[in-house]
Amino acid sequence: MPFHTGIRKSREKKVPVTGKNFVGFTRSAKGNNRLQATDPSTGKTLPETFFAASDEEIEQTMLLAQKAYAEYRRLDGSTKSRFLNAIADEILALGDELVERAVLETALPPIRIQSERGRTVGQLRMFADLINEGSWCEATIVTADADRQPLPRPDIRRMLMPMGPVAVFAASNFPLAFSTAGGDTASALAGGNPVIVKAHSSHMGTSELVASAISAAGQKTGMPDGVFSMLFGEGQTVGKAMINHSVVKSAAFTGSEAAGRKLFDIASQRPEPIPFFAEMGSLNPVLLLPQALRRRGKDIAKDYAASITLGSGQFCTKPGLLIAMNGKELDAFINDLSGYMTKILPMSMLNPKIHTNFLSNRRKALEQAGVHRISVSTIDPDPAANQGQPTLAAVAAGDFIANPILQEEVFGPYTLLVCCDNRDQLSDVIQSVGGQLTATVVAEEDELVEHLSIVEMLIEKSGRMICNGIPTGVEVCAAMQHGGPYPASSDSRFTSVGTAAIKRFVRPVGFQSWPQSLLPDELRDSNPLSIWRLVDGELTRN
Amino acid sequence: MPFHTGIRKSREKKVPVTGKNFVGFTRSAKGNNRLQATDPSTGKTLPETFFAASDEEIEQTMLLAQKAYAEYRRLDGSTKSRFLNAIADEILALGDELVERAVLETALPPIRIQSERGRTVGQLRMFADLINEGSWCEATIVTADADRQPLPRPDIRRMLMPMGPVAVFAASNFPLAFSTAGGDTASALAGGNPVIVKAHSSHMGTSELVASAISAAGQKTGMPDGVFSMLFGEGQTVGKAMINHSVVKSAAFTGSEAAGRKLFDIASQRPEPIPFFAEMGSLNPVLLLPQALRRRGKDIAKDYAASITLGSGQFCTKPGLLIAMNGKELDAFINDLSGYMTKILPMSMLNPKIHTNFLSNRRKALEQAGVHRISVSTIDPDPAANQGQPTLAAVAAGDFIANPILQEEVFGPYTLLVCCDNRDQLSDVIQSVGGQLTATVVAEEDELVEHLSIVEMLIEKSGRMICNGIPTGVEVCAAMQHGGPYPASSDSRFTSVGTAAIKRFVRPVGFQSWPQSLLPDELRDSNPLSIWRLVDGELTRN
Repeated sequence: MPFHTGIRKSREKKVPVTGKNFVGFTRSAKGNNRLQATDPSTGKTLPETFFAASDEEIEQTMLLAQKAYAEYRRLDGSTKSRFLNAIADEILALGDELVERAVLETALPPIRIQSERGRTVGQLRMFADLINEGSWCEATIVTADADRQPLPRPDIRRMLMPMGPVAVFAASNFPLAFSTAGGDTASALAGGNPVIVKAHSSHMGTSELVASAISAAGQKTGMPDGVFSMLFGEGQTVGKAMINHSVVKSAAFTGSEAAGRKLFDIASQRPEPIPFFAEMGSLNPVLLLPQALRRRGKDIAKDYAASITLGSGQFCTKPGLLIAMNGKELDAFINDLSGYMTKILPMSMLNPKIHTNFLSNRRKALEQAGVHRISVSTIDPDPAANQGQPTLAAVAAGDFIANPILQEEVFGPYTLLVCCDNRDQLSDVIQSVGGQLTATVVAEEDELVEHLSIVEMLIEKSGRMICNGIPTGVEVCAAMQHGGPYPASSDSRFTSVGTAAIKRFVRPVGFQSWPQSLLPDELRDSNPLSIWRLVDGELTRN
Repeated sequence: MPFHTGIRKSREKKVPVTGKNFVGFTRSAKGNNRLQATDPSTGKTLPETFFAASDEEIEQTMLLAQKAYAEYRRLDGSTKSRFLNAIADEILALGDELVERAVLETALPPIRIQSERGRTVGQLRMFADLINEGSWCEATIVTADADRQPLPRPDIRRMLMPMGPVAVFAASNFPLAFSTAGGDTASALAGGNPVIVKAHSSHMGTSELVASAISAAGQKTGMPDGVFSMLFGEGQTVGKAMINHSVVKSAAFTGSEAAGRKLFDIASQRPEPIPFFAEMGSLNPVLLLPQALRRRGKDIAKDYAASITLGSGQFCTKPGLLIAMNGKELDAFINDLSGYMTKILPMSMLNPKIHTNFLSNRRKALEQAGVHRISVSTIDPDPAANQGQPTLAAVAAGDFIANPILQEEVFGPYTLLVCCDNRDQLSDVIQSVGGQLTATVVAEEDELVEHLSIVEMLIEKSGRMICNGIPTGVEVCAAMQHGGPYPASSDSRFTSVGTAAIKRFVRPVGFQSWPQSLLPDELRDSNPLSIWRLVDGELTRN
């Protein structure tokens, strides 16, 4: 992750948390249902009341988004990039107030929230740079050929253009980087689409602060009212209504497989189905080969204890499945990993529901035939509420393969080590797992070569392959792939992290024999934006 | 369309039509259900019997495809390109036999089949060139930065890779170019995926000949058994079983909205949903502005009479909706268009079912309030069976907007002219239509500028915009977009024609800190394939 320190002084005047929805630039509280957030570290309800959006407010929001779209889609890249940069500025201007509120609502440590703010701001600026430069739109030109036989060839040009309003379902585990102004919002706005965020109910105050920053940025840079809205409410009512609304033309979600699949089904079963990108997490299998464990097992154990428990294990790329060959090296590794994990103090999880789910999913996993609990971290002498205790379990390959329950993600600081007797078992274990965001191979180069066929099986199942590293830490860059075969994501052809995330929200439009003066700048002969284009088969900026 | 003459002498020995399925390279006829094709020009059943694939054959096919995938996906671009070129060669080697069979089964004229064969062969060679060159895979490299603060940046690389076996549902209206070895098959194979074709039941003999060509090409170029299979059978049984099979990882379809939506729903509701690209046709609205009609109405009428009735109107880009402003120019244009259309002799349609549907859909449309039949072509004095009579109808804008039935596609040589009193009506008519493959504006440049806001509404609804041309004739090239907002296609982010069609069947895979020696050639530092890559933000071939 690229970190920016980004610590600025708070504004003089605190931004009040009002609990009102953002219906475009207007604050609105017409609904009768109220929601409250919880401080997960105490388990106590926070005082602020948030107003779930009413049907009328949802309708107003959608009409505004549709209206805004007609104007926003026509803005050039540099104008939209000013908006994105202004959002980044306004988020930084919230200063410590934002950090404090996010810490209060998520129990994540301030340093994590600060670094996540850096990432969020970095993502916004990255997309601002992308659309300011302009080559992202894949401009392709095939010029006319009047002499072509038997029929002349017309002039045909194509580029990526916006699709319409995007519904963004914020994630709980990244209250900034995958939430209100996170990668989904940034890439959807960059693509020329208005955004309607469904605020995550476990950090509504944080969401409101960030939404106020986006709203201020939109007004300061002259964006149309409706380019951004944010609604509070339950997924079953407000979320469902959003995804079912005909104005919404695509959607993005980060969260659990159960919730993601429910929304995906609604999106697919609409009279007009819409693309729905759900990033639903995964086991992130790690293949630990013997020579590597022998030569540097202690370091690996230390790195993995940290990766498994980072942010209380609440990362979609948390290594939840370690696969290794039985032997002395593994015995020593288990000992080391267990030793490191027991020393890690438990942290409060993101909200009481996630904590309850962690306890029940872990219990269910530990109850399965052949599963042994190896270690649980030492108990915090002064425990906060909703703590997730780092837990290491192990199972023999045969028991793992036979039991699909062991393939269910346990969201939290838990990992399962699968112990294999031979290479066939190794292969069978990998064959048995589903689609993954990441797969990691920890190996010396020799043994990596020896296990190539197994590594290729992993490639078939994963979005990102890592060699001798940890899967947590998703670099925000042009080469990142964050999305893999189902159920890691709903469509493995897209990513939710990195510049390519914009591709989820744009579609190609062709222009045949179109007058030069009416073509978008990106497709004119003169190439006024000096972007890279494919012209008659040649990539060129001329 | 790029045409090739491509007429070659037939092989000495005729390829027999056996009616057997292609389970990989093996011919198989284990099922009990038989199918027969019809000669649409006589309405008589053709003698050959085709064997619907049994459940056992479907299962064998899938296992072979899965096995072949493990090998095929690893082949380099130049090896796969030899396979695609060999398919093209083998299709040409079928000579007149293929043309005769296709004419017999579709009632399309020989010259059309010959030009379609040219297009089919051209598509195969285009994809062969694309993968032989190699830059299509979007290789993106971000190199490591050990000094990055607070954390070093790892080396990350990404490229497009195959997704797994593709189910291809052949279309009736292009028995070669959108069928067994059509654009879907060519692009799926180019992407590194085995293909299983569901043969279209109205041209099974043609399908068998082409499948035999693919099979021969596969064996001659050493491809793994299972890289290509073709099954006969009904959509409700064989087609459904194919799309539901866990081995199939994506699918492509060309046909009616009803059939496409059914298959899309199955694909989306699988335990593991798969991308399903359905191209389902559209109305292809044409906006005819007054100055253009005044200055060159006769030429426009002539071109459109030909475009509406081309191939008996059985093109997904047939102009099915003309929109114009009432006035003297329109009266003259109606007169001209009607005159040309009445002189076009009817042709047999592709099969009796399509003909029956044409008659009933046309009747339904003509029965709607306010719809007037302007003209029907003169009757053929010596009529063949299943003829579709070219038909022109008209309706006032108000009646059109009020009646969603008039937005249903009438597949065949029929078009509806919507007559508007003013610009508001023009705008309302366009606002009322759904997603389209194409939209055309016939206008003088001045009046195009005057109607920009209406043109922008059309862009929002369409995949390809055409100025002063006809929508039929889909150029196969890098800039083509054939796919638009629903219901024109199931996912407007993709195209089924042109080089970009390959994007439907590939997904990005990332490699982090991966050893150079084990990276795919496309991602190695040395760039052994000399492809275009995005390296640390710069497009380069170095």
